[in-house]
This record gives sequence, structure tokens and C-alpha cells, in this order.
Amino acid sequence: MANCASGGEMKEVSRRALILTTIVAILITTAIAPSLAISPLMWGDANGARTLKAHPGWPVDFAWTLICGFLVMFMQAGFALVETGFCRTKNTANVMMKNLIDYVIGSLAFWVMGFAIMMGKDWHGIVGITGWFLAGKAYDVSTMAVWFFELVFCATAATIVSGAIAERPKFSVYVIYSAVISAIIYPIYGHWVWGGGWLSSAPFMVKLGHGYGALDFAGSGVVHAIGGYIALAACLMLGPRIGKYDENGNPRPIPGHNIAFAVLGTFILWFGWFGFNPGSTLSAHELRIAVIAVNTNLAAAAAAATAMFITWAKNGKPDVGMTCNGALAGLVAITAPCAWVNSWAAVVIGIVAGFIVCYGYWFLENHGVDDMVGAVAVHGFNGTWGLISLGIFADGTYGVYTTAKPYVTGLLYGNPGFFLCQLISAVVNFAWAFGCGLLLFWILKKTMGIRVSPEEEVLGLDITEHATVAYPNFVCTETGLPFSIRGGGKE
Amino acid sequence: MANCASGGEMKEVSRRALILTTIVAILITTAIAPSLAISPLMWGDANGARTLKAHPGWPVDFAWTLICGFLVMFMQAGFALVETGFCRTKNTANVMMKNLIDYVIGSLAFWVMGFAIMMGKDWHGIVGITGWFLAGKAYDVSTMAVWFFELVFCATAATIVSGAIAERPKFSVYVIYSAVISAIIYPIYGHWVWGGGWLSSAPFMVKLGHGYGALDFAGSGVVHAIGGYIALAACLMLGPRIGKYDENGNPRPIPGHNIAFAVLGTFILWFGWFGFNPGSTLSAHELRIAVIAVNTNLAAAAAAATAMFITWAKNGKPDVGMTCNGALAGLVAITAPCAWVNSWAAVVIGIVAGFIVCYGYWFLENHGVDDMVGAVAVHGFNGTWGLISLGIFADGTYGVYTTAKPYVTGLLYGNPGFFLCQLISAVVNFAWAFGCGLLLFWILKKTMGIRVSPEEEVLGLDITEHATVAYPNFVCTETGLPFSIRGGGKE
Amino acid sequence: MANCASGGEMKEVSRRALILTTIVAILITTAIAPSLAISPLMWGDANGARTLKAHPGWPVDFAWTLICGFLVMFMQAGFALVETGFCRTKNTANVMMKNLIDYVIGSLAFWVMGFAIMMGKDWHGIVGITGWFLAGKAYDVSTMAVWFFELVFCATAATIVSGAIAERPKFSVYVIYSAVISAIIYPIYGHWVWGGGWLSSAPFMVKLGHGYGALDFAGSGVVHAIGGYIALAACLMLGPRIGKYDENGNPRPIPGHNIAFAVLGTFILWFGWFGFNPGSTLSAHELRIAVIAVNTNLAAAAAAATAMFITWAKNGKPDVGMTCNGALAGLVAITAPCAWVNSWAAVVIGIVAGFIVCYGYWFLENHGVDDMVGAVAVHGFNGTWGLISLGIFADGTYGVYTTAKPYVTGLLYGNPGFFLCQLISAVVNFAWAFGCGLLLFWILKKTMGIRVSPEEEVLGLDITEHATVAYPNFVCTETGLPFSIRGGGKE
Repeated sequence: MANCASGGEMKEVSRRALILTTIVAILITTAIAPSLAISPLMWGDANGARTLKAHPGWPVDFAWTLICGFLVMFMQAGFALVETGFCRTKNTANVMMKNLIDYVIGSLAFWVMGFAIMMGKDWHGIVGITGWFLAGKAYDVSTMAVWFFELVFCATAATIVSGAIAERPKFSVYVIYSAVISAIIYPIYGHWVWGGGWLSSAPFMVKLGHGYGALDFAGSGVVHAIGGYIALAACLMLGPRIGKYDENGNPRPIPGHNIAFAVLGTFILWFGWFGFNPGSTLSAHELRIAVIAVNTNLAAAAAAATAMFITWAKNGKPDVGMTCNGALAGLVAITAPCAWVNSWAAVVIGIVAGFIVCYGYWFLENHGVDDMVGAVAVHGFNGTWGLISLGIFADGTYGVYTTAKPYVTGLLYGNPGFFLCQLISAVVNFAWAFGCGLLLFWILKKTMGIRVSPEEEVLGLDITEHATVAYPNFVCTETGLPFSIRGGGKE
Repeated sequence: MANCASGGEMKEVSRRALILTTIVAILITTAIAPSLAISPLMWGDANGARTLKAHPGWPVDFAWTLICGFLVMFMQAGFALVETGFCRTKNTANVMMKNLIDYVIGSLAFWVMGFAIMMGKDWHGIVGITGWFLAGKAYDVSTMAVWFFELVFCATAATIVSGAIAERPKFSVYVIYSAVISAIIYPIYGHWVWGGGWLSSAPFMVKLGHGYGALDFAGSGVVHAIGGYIALAACLMLGPRIGKYDENGNPRPIPGHNIAFAVLGTFILWFGWFGFNPGSTLSAHELRIAVIAVNTNLAAAAAAATAMFITWAKNGKPDVGMTCNGALAGLVAITAPCAWVNSWAAVVIGIVAGFIVCYGYWFLENHGVDDMVGAVAVHGFNGTWGLISLGIFADGTYGVYTTAKPYVTGLLYGNPGFFLCQLISAVVNFAWAFGCGLLLFWILKKTMGIRVSPEEEVLGLDITEHATVAYPNFVCTETGLPFSIRGGGKE
Repeated sequence: MANCASGGEMKEVSRRALILTTIVAILITTAIAPSLAISPLMWGDANGARTLKAHPGWPVDFAWTLICGFLVMFMQAGFALVETGFCRTKNTANVMMKNLIDYVIGSLAFWVMGFAIMMGKDWHGIVGITGWFLAGKAYDVSTMAVWFFELVFCATAATIVSGAIAERPKFSVYVIYSAVISAIIYPIYGHWVWGGGWLSSAPFMVKLGHGYGALDFAGSGVVHAIGGYIALAACLMLGPRIGKYDENGNPRPIPGHNIAFAVLGTFILWFGWFGFNPGSTLSAHELRIAVIAVNTNLAAAAAAATAMFITWAKNGKPDVGMTCNGALAGLVAITAPCAWVNSWAAVVIGIVAGFIVCYGYWFLENHGVDDMVGAVAVHGFNGTWGLISLGIFADGTYGVYTTAKPYVTGLLYGNPGFFLCQLISAVVNFAWAFGCGLLLFWILKKTMGIRVSPEEEVLGLDITEHATVAYPNFVCTETGLPFSIRGGGKE
């Protein structure tokens, strides 16, 4: 069977991966050991004593940053549940597994090189070049805190892709693209905006924005739109699931198998977002965190209500899945502007996000893009809207991650230059993510293949990719298993 | 079909709601924009610089208040799971959805007016009158932190009602009552106790309590009993579910569809309660937070153990659902006294709560009140017990949200006056919540109707209210769907 | 029926338990009331005013310790889900219930005596002897904070056992062993390492380690290995589940009923572990918390990736359950060394943990140990590996829970004495846990019996122990219910 063949092949791949991992581990050990043997004076402040002496007020900032980072990490569970809730029973284990694994692979890839590229010492505004393996001077309490916080964001970008393309790619594809996104694609754009790169810091951008270049408080663009547009590229390269479109090309609903999971996942994401946005100050001394929390909540609520009313008006009944996506859309959109706008603007941003997610999703679905969870509309389109809305609504009451001037001011408050910066950032963001996504998935398609066979897709990825059944004690209509395996009898 | 008719009607309602929302959004923008255009000197401290300068120790208090608020927000997921676990498959999506939506609507309603009524500048001890839309001087970091913390409490009160009355009301009723509770009913009693209103601050109350009026540390009364007694009113107005009582009026069990969800929800609520109670100091400088956390945990444990042993003794087997309700009952009861009692009192309060929840639930069930999750017994009766037990056990070691005197002392420690204050508060609490609840649901019943048709109730609210099926891939016995839709064939 | 008989017996047991609980409550009240009536001068600092004055920087440490403790408490939900996910539908309610109840009973037992034995004033290096019931001087904010943090660890140890032996013990056994572990077994070894007992503080140990005795930062040994080896003893005393081994003694897979729960539980545990490890500083002033968080995450990721690749190489497909166990194994292993190693060592420790969990689990399974969730391999073997790896990799950059010297240095960095300390601790740990476990379960077996009857085991513990069905609306193949109850018809 194709299934077995693929299994054998994977077995070989995996054996090699195992050997490779061991070798890499030994190499790492060998490579870094000398740097540890050298005088501690070469290091950063590994135990924190000097840092605390120099900054006696920092414990609360460390606690704040780390706890918020924990909440962001927990969002992985939220993504896993939303995506699993929207898939069919026969792909449940696969979807949960790839959500676990993109965090696992992302953690390692970001440690090896992602962090160095994103937050290392800037090289001509393009990439960072220090901090590999967190070794040497990067063995420092402040660096570690920042690493952890950036890692959980990085893993979010990777996980967005998987939800869009679920139910059809090979599992090995997940492993590889998670590594590439976490090690290269995400960190480079991240460097441009957050790591001192050109979008935020090039003189012409700073001049254009009147004191600051493109901004993105917590990552509408850096995290969500990057993930969303890679997802769009991946959807286009993979094609829709079998059965998604009828012979006339009209979309057919493929209902998710567990709506309770989807809503629970939405709650967990909303909860985790309070780490995502307010935590991005990296300091509790920025009391603006209170405003950020409020804006985050209001935008999510406004967008969820809007999406609910739109579906209610359109179909006569409020749609549960779209309301969840509405909440997430509002959260994505407010992520860039959350620190720089006031609460009425947050509500307006949320209302617009609700419209964007509904009509964006329907538009893509009607144009052949089979995005299982609506990730492109939620994270891509609304990520862009977040960047733009920041350029519009920034009200000039708060500076660049600090209460110090210059205050960030948008179009409505008289700074069209900054609005332009944001437009540039949005265009670059789309081009980078979509371009890299196309290239990555095109290479994967040409070399190893990205999609399981039609037989495997119909059987379900749980059994074909993991030799498991997610719900073996339940009688299901979409397990991909012949009934005799489940019930022991013939029907 | 009635279903379609109702759908069409809702469609119309919803179209209007959508238009209305848009208009309101425009109005808000128009109304508030001028206040933003005016000199910043009119505002509060929007970016926090002045606040930090005046109170350099506040960052930890902001972090504490916000993080605890995040945990309380996450309780929404706990409520959703407990309620969903106790409902049947055919109402799963509806119950999850309304838990999402009451938070969504509550967030907006509390922003528009609830907060102003509750925590705004006091007007004759009855209502607050400033802070609408968080505009003007309310655009201030301290106000925002308090707003967020109060909001998540407010949303808790609204969500309690929905669990009790699940499986029969129209979805539109949820939307409306969530708004009314969050905008009016909850904030007014909240103002009386927490906003400087008459129950806590009127001279005759303060005199009676010997230095302080009625108290409620984290909301046994303000949040839980208010929610619980509105739920009681709603249950009475709606009547029991079809099939709950046999022809002789004896209750029949309607088992919940997912006991794992119910227990998971209980864990999440217990977890979130550590934000609810210790967070209510709004300050980490009150080291009493450690005592509060311990008391919270011990009361929950004692109540859960008690409920377990009661059912074990009564039925010969420990009951899972009632043990969960026991834990929640202990948490509700300790919420008012948590800061003012010592740990043995917390255990005693918990044991009593365990008895109250079991016998309270059985009493109501035997008297025709069909409360699906036991919300009236858990939140109503034990909320009242929380207010009263505070009047009994307060041990005179801690002041009114501060280490400063006067210390709060109850009946056992020689202050019967304060015990009377608490009795008054408990009676007022019941009268207000139950009265408002009856009025609200009576008006809704007379105008739009509050209950779905019997056909819709039997089919299940998922399909009739949301055109969805929560578990389309599982073969269920209570889906409300004709088998042919699920399996594709005729049986 | 045996079932009913057992029910009646339990009913009697439970009635007595209820009476006993009430009596104990009254006794406690009577016993402690006098101590409360005595002058407050006898107490600790119950409201925190004196503590704050003496240590104005402590609010952030209290907030940090408590919030991390909340996260650890939430791990109970993670354990519940992992264990429930790996059990069959017919035991779902039972597994969830016992996870709730071991926390409930553990909370009470640790309050009554566990804490006093573990953290009370040391008596000859063997046990602590003050702090019973948190009364007297233990009514103090600092004591309470430590109590809460130690409690949630204690409850973790108890809950580990239940996962290993699930699907066959009597429920009453859970209640009793939870109390014994929480009150006695866990606190005594805990005292030896964390409470000033002989393993950490005896002069010969301190001399051997060159300045410090055996260490265990957050409890690889104290919490996980203790739980894991009691679980091993319990598995041996109980014997395997019916159907686990074929007539030749070869193991057969018994797939869990809900793989989504298992992965969700893994995410929750990973999330909660960020409270477990970084929180164990009990102070945010130790900025080393950032290093701890990073190490925790890297070890988990490395172990999960390793386990995935091992199963991929072995079976041709990456195994979901084993990848989850890999993540948990990495978390367990890094728990002891997390504060004292650098990030490459964390990765190496994780890779080794991935091998240990896979081959450890398979070894036990092939030797007749039916450990449903792999708790012995995850928590036992990797707990031991955590103790030993600390002795190997400690890099001499951080002291004993503080930035002050002496710094902790392991074998690789020139301190074989400390490595010996860790080996001694590991051996003592195994002997204590396994020995106590055998004794406890042997006594229980001889007196009340520990295992349900074969008929009850086949029917499932939900119906026989709790008279409930976890998923009554789903058609299941493993409910233990005759079909007629579920479907209404005859098959």
C-alpha cells in the first residue's frame, strides 16, 4: 500500500534525522564547551547579580515579561484546539501533534539561529549576527528573558500556517517548514521591525515618520500577517481538500468535528493574548499596560459582536465558528496599535476587523482557497489592518515603548508620514511572507512532495501518518477506519 | 417550519442590530472625538508617567491586578466547560456560544455604561455618574486597570445565569440579558458595596459595623449571589426543560454529555479563582494575599470533600458532578470572607458550603426549579453564606483592604453589629437580584418571548438557533438530527 | 451483585467518613480556637504589615511565588487530561474524579500535618515538627505563601501515582493513598532535601559536596521520582489490567479514548511547569528565573523531538502519545538542574530524557508493568536522571537558590563530590518511595483490598464506582453499558 511505502520511507528519513540530531547535539556540545571553559568575564551576567545591582527595580519587569511569556506559550494550546475543533475526527491526532511539534521544532530552531538573526547585533539593517545557541555573552539573564518572550511569538507565527492547510499535508512537511519559519523567515522581518532593522530604524523611515519608522507594538504584522500570508502561499501550493468544492467549483462546508474545542480554543487564545499585548512592553514600569489590556479586550469584543451580527443578518442565525473567528480577528487587528490608541478607536478597529474576517473568509473560499480555519482572513488580512489602523488612529499619548517623547501619532492626529511608514511596512510584510512562503512550499513540493496521496487523505492523516485513532472508543462517521476495526463486527 | 419563521424574524432583528451597531459606532466616534481634540490637560494620566512618578512602587500592583484579572477572564472558559459538560450534545454549540457572547456583550455594555454606574463618582450613595465609554479623564492608567478588573467580575455575574437556564431560552434572550445585567443590574449593587454606595458607606451602616459598613472582599454577594438569584428568577420564568419532571412532578436526571468537560471546567474555575480572590486587593503590597490564596484553596477542598462524602453516604457512590459543585460552592462561599478569616474558619466555611450546595440543589430540584448546573445553589445560596460567614468569622487581624485599622471583626470575635450589616447586605442582595431578575425576564417574556418552541427544544438549540451540529462526525443519541443527515443512509 | 454489595459497604464507609469529618471539624475548631483567643503577640505576622516594613521589596516576590503557584495548581488539570485521554471511555469520569480528589484530599492532609513535617522546625535532620493546621505562629503571610507553593507540589506527587494505576483500583484507595502520600511520604523526603533535613544539610553531606549537600532545584526527585516510584510499587501490587497481556505475556496496546485530551493536557503541563521551575526561586529578585525558564523550555523541546524521532525510526511513523511523554520527560529531567546549567546542557539533558522515556516505557511494558500513562518512565526514571544530571552539568554560575557563593558545580566542572551527593540522594529517593509505596499498598491490599472485581473492571469504573456515564449521548464501543441503556433498542 502507498501508506506502507510512505511509512518505510519516513522510517528511513527519521532514522537519519535521529542520527543527525545526535550528531548535532555532539557538535553543539563540542562547539560551545570551549566558550564555557573560558573566563566568566567574557560572559554576560549569567546569574543576574550585576544586573540587579545596576537595576534594582527590574525584578518586577522580569516577572512581568516571563509571566506574560508563559501566557503566550499557552496560546499554543488555544491554536491546537481551534484547529482541531475545525477538523474532522480522522485528522484529530495529526492536527494536535503538529501543533505540539511546531512549538518543539520552533524552540530548537529559534535557539540555534532564529534569535541571533532577529535580535542579534544589527548588520546593515538587514539581519542580526550574534547570540547563536544563546552561548557566550548571550548567557545573560536579560538576554534569556527576551529570548523566551520572542520565542513564544515566533512559535505563534509558525502555528498559524498549520491551521490553514490542515487535513492534507505530509507530517514531515510540518517539521521542515516549522524549522524554516522559526529559523529564517520570521526572524528576518522581525529584525526589520523589532531588532533595529531598516523598517523601524533606517534614517529615511525615521524621517518619514517624524521621529520613528514603522512600528508594530506586539506583532499584528511581525507575527500574524507573516504567518497568515505564508499560510496563503501554502494553501495555494497545496490546493483544496478533496470534497471542498463541487464540480462547479462552488465551496461546500466541511464542518469541524468538535465545536466545543473550537470555542475553548478561542477562550484560551483570548486569555493568552493578555500576555501577548500588554507583555510586549517587557516592563511593568510602563503603566500603559492597563490601557493595552483594555484595548485588547474591547477590540476582541467588538469584532466578535460584529461577526455575530453579520452572520445573523446574512443567514438568519448567529454562526458560532465565525463569531470565534471574529474575536480572534479583533485580537489580531489590535495587536499592532494596542498601546497607541484609545478605547473608542479600539472598538472601531474591532468592528472593522469583524467585517474583514467575514468577507475576507468568504471571498477566499469562493476563489478556491481552502483555508480550514480561516487563518488568512484572521491573521493575514487583519494583521495588515492592524498595521494600517495603527497608522490611522495613534493618538499621540504614548511614545515608542516608553512614556518618553516622541509620542506616536497617526493620520487622524496629523501625521500622514507615519501612516505612510505603516503602509510601506504592510506592503513589505506581504511581499516577504507571501514570497518566502511560495518559494519554501515550491521547493518542498519539487523535492519531497507536500501532499499525502488521495487515498491517505480520505483515510485520514491519523491512521496514515501516525498509525493512531484519536477516538477509538467512539463510533464515528469520519474515522477513515473500516468499521470492523472499530466494532469488531461486520455491519 | 417554526424554525425557519423564527430564523427569518431573527434575520430581520439582526439586520437591524447590525445597522444599529454601525450607527452607535459612528455616534460614539463623533461624540467622543471632540473630547480627544481638546487639550490633554483635561485627561487623566493616559500614559502613566505622572502616576509612576507619584507612586514609584505601583508597577508590581499594576502587574498583580492585571495578571489576576487575566485569570478571572479565563474563568469564562471554565464556566463554558462546566455548563457544556452538563448539557446534552444537541445544545453544545449553543451553550459554548452564549458563554462567549455574554463576555463579548458584557465587555461592551460595561464599557458604555456599567463601569460609570458602578465605580464612577458617587451620586447620593445610589449610583456612579462618571466614566462613560472610558472617555475624558477616565482615559487614565489607574482607571483602566480597575476597569479591566471590574469587567471580568461583571462578566462572571452574567455568565452564571446562562448555566442555570440552558437548553431552552432563545439565543437573542442571552444577548439582551447579558447587556442588561452588565450595564445596570450588576453595577448598581456593585456600587452600593464597592463603589462607595450606601451599603458600605452610609453613616448608619458604618456606625452599625463599628467603623465599616457591609463588606464583601471579592464578591460572594456582589458577583455570585447576584448572578445566582437572577438565575433563580430566570428559571422560574422559563419553567423546566421538557422531560425534566415525570407526570407526578418527580425530577428525572438529564445527564450531561461530557463529564470530562465538567471536571476540566471545575479545575479552570478553581485556577481562575486565585485571580478572583487574592487579586481583589488590587495591590501586591498587601502581603495578606498569601492568606487569601490559602483560605481560597482550603475552603474549596473542604467543600468538595464534604459534597463527595454526602453523596457517598446517600447513594453509596461518590458523585462526580456534585463533587465539582462542592468545590465551586466552597470557592463562592470563601469569596467574601477570604481576606478576613483564618484557615480553620476557611475549612469550616467550606464544610458548610458543601452541605448547602447538596441539599440546596436537591431542594430546588424537588420543588420544580430546573437549574441545569446547580447555579442557584452554588452561586446564590453559597454567595449568601459567604456574606453571612464573613459576619461570623472575621477574626480582627486585617483591615478594610489594607493593613491599617480598623480591623474587621465578626460575631465570634465580638462584633454583632457587623454581623447585622452583613445580614442587611444579604437581604438587599437577594431582593435586588431576584426582583430585577423577575422584572427583566417578565418584560422579555411579554415582549419577545424567552423560550424556544417545544419542537426546537427537542431538536436541540444547536441546529435551531445556530444551524450547526457540535459533533457532526460522532454518532450520537441526542443530536436532534434525523439519522439520515448524520450517516447518509436510512436505518 | 458484587457491585451493589460493594456499594453498600462504601455507603457505610462513607457515612462514617462524613461523621468523622464533622467531628474532626469540630475538634479542630475547639483545638485551635484557644490559640486564636490568646494575644496576637504570640502569632506570626498575619496581616503582613511588619513583614512589609522589614522587607519593602517583597511584594514582587509574593506576587511571583503565588502566581507561579497558581500555574502549578493548574497542572492538576493537565494531569487529569493526559490520564483521561489515555484511558477508555468507560473509566473517564473515574479518572477525572480521582484527579480532582487527590488535590482535594492532598490540600487538607498537607494542611493538617504534611506541611509541619516537611517545612516545620527541624528535628534531628529527620522531620519537621511545627506548623500543624497553619495555626499559631504559622498564621503568617510568609508561611502561608510557602505553604501554598509547597502544597501544589505535594499534590503533583500524589497525582502521578493515579495515572499509572488507572482503570482498576477502588476509588476509596485513591482517597486513602492521596492522604498518606500528602501527609507523610512526600513530606518526609521533602524535609530531607528542602526542609533542612540530612540530605541537604548534614555536615558529612555538605563536606562531600564542598559547601552544599544534595540539591534538587524544583523537584525532579522530591516530587516526580517520589511519585513515579510509588507508582511503580502500586503497579506491581495491583497487577496489569485485564486484556493488557496476551496468553504468552506479550503486551497488547489499549489505546486511550481521546488523544486530543492527552495533547491538551501536555500543553497545560508544559505551561504549568513555568510556574514549577522558575517559581521555585520563591523570589523574582533572583533574575536567574529567566535562565530557568529557557532551560525548562529547551529540555522539553529536545526531549519531545527525540522521542518523536525514536518512534519514527522504530515504527516508520511519529507516535503522538510518546511525543507527549517525551515533552513531559524533558520537563521532569530539567526540574532538578534547571537553575544550575546552561542551555546546551538543557538540550543534552532533554535528548537523554527522550531516550530514557521511550526505552524505559517499553522495558517496563515488556516486563509486566502495566503503567497506563508511562508515569514510571516519565516521572520516576527521568526524575532520577534529573538528580544525576544536576550532579554532572552544574556549571558553577549560580549558588544555592541565590546569587551568593558557593556556586553549584558538577562533575564536568570539577566537583565529583557533589556528583556523589546526588547519587546518594537518588538512591535514597528510590528506596524511600518504592519502599513506602510497597508497604502502603500491601497494607491496603491486606485490609480493604485495592482492586475492583474483574466484572467491575470490564464494566468500567464510571458505572461501578460512581454510577455515572461520562458520555451518555455518544454511541461508544467501550462504555461498559449494555447497549439497550444507550440506544433504547436491542442490537
